[in-house]
Amino acid sequence: MKFSPLVDELIQSLKVLPGVGPKSAQRMAFQLLERQRSGGLKLGKALEAAMTDVGHCQSCRTFTEEQRCSICANPRRAEAGQLCVVESPADVLAIESSGHYSGQYFVLMGHLSPLDGIGPDDLGLDVLDERLASGDIKELILATNPTVEGEATAHYIADMAKAQRLTVSRIAHGVPVGGELEYVDGTTLALSFSGRQQV
Amino acid sequence: MKFSPLVDELIQSLKVLPGVGPKSAQRMAFQLLERQRSGGLKLGKALEAAMTDVGHCQSCRTFTEEQRCSICANPRRAEAGQLCVVESPADVLAIESSGHYSGQYFVLMGHLSPLDGIGPDDLGLDVLDERLASGDIKELILATNPTVEGEATAHYIADMAKAQRLTVSRIAHGVPVGGELEYVDGTTLALSFSGRQQV
Repeated sequence: MKFSPLVDELIQSLKVLPGVGPKSAQRMAFQLLERQRSGGLKLGKALEAAMTDVGHCQSCRTFTEEQRCSICANPRRAEAGQLCVVESPADVLAIESSGHYSGQYFVLMGHLSPLDGIGPDDLGLDVLDERLASGDIKELILATNPTVEGEATAHYIADMAKAQRLTVSRIAHGVPVGGELEYVDGTTLALSFSGRQQV
Repeated sequence: MKFSPLVDELIQSLKVLPGVGPKSAQRMAFQLLERQRSGGLKLGKALEAAMTDVGHCQSCRTFTEEQRCSICANPRRAEAGQLCVVESPADVLAIESSGHYSGQYFVLMGHLSPLDGIGPDDLGLDVLDERLASGDIKELILATNPTVEGEATAHYIADMAKAQRLTVSRIAHGVPVGGELEYVDGTTLALSFSGRQQV
């Protein structure tokens, strides 16, 4: 036995969400039907609007329904000539909430991964190369994730930027604030030693 | 900094789903925008259709967009005169997939819970009483959850059905198949002893 067609369709469709299997999808569907009809309707409309209208910012590739996102459209952010390369829009949010960076971003929407068939063009590195060649950028800050793929991507972009004779920097790796040395892994500790700064 | 209005609206709306907080909502939104546009659009349409059109079956109260659900509409299921009372549509699915029951259902959509203001009328017990009085039902099987509220609800309905001089039974509680006695709790073991059957 299955549920009625509409309920069944809803349960099947909910499984498209990451981390949602058959049981969770069922629980979500029933929760919405029982207690959250208006919220569910709002979610439906928000999904349709976002899936249809949200595209990528022409200059930084983050998600936006405008041609350029709010950061790229702000002339103040371009003053310092800094461009920070990150892997995802969520990274932009994390850096913005640190309140310490006031330059522009370039969002790769992933990292180089030859095994998955993700090459430089899929990350918009051609667009990035054009921006670097335009002469508006003075410093390129690489803030890709500290993973094997993230490091490889950072190296690739660093070579690209050096060919344009730009200043290239990589964000510091080391012991996170509030952590205890005892629980920090060996690679991070080694990096925090090799990256030590005189006080 | 926030995301663009449509993306932000999507993230906020996703938080209506049970078990989804701000971080999960963000991850879901980005996953849909990056890789599952068509799935997201389908989900949006499924949500709107279900939230608008799905109501309750007139005779068993389960979710359906028809007047009567597929089980209630099937005359064969009424032949035995059995009516099984469960708490939720998911319980109907669980019992159906056991393949052992071929009667009809009555879905309470919850359990008696005076502290939350859920009384007999909220569970449609007036509708159930009418069905019991109609004379089509010969046996009432109580399959509410083995929790305090579920047991209380079962007792209440049992009294109601006995007033109509119907056969009332409660599904057996005991050691689940495939489990090990060692790990079964005391109450379940006590119930499995008191409910022992001669072989």
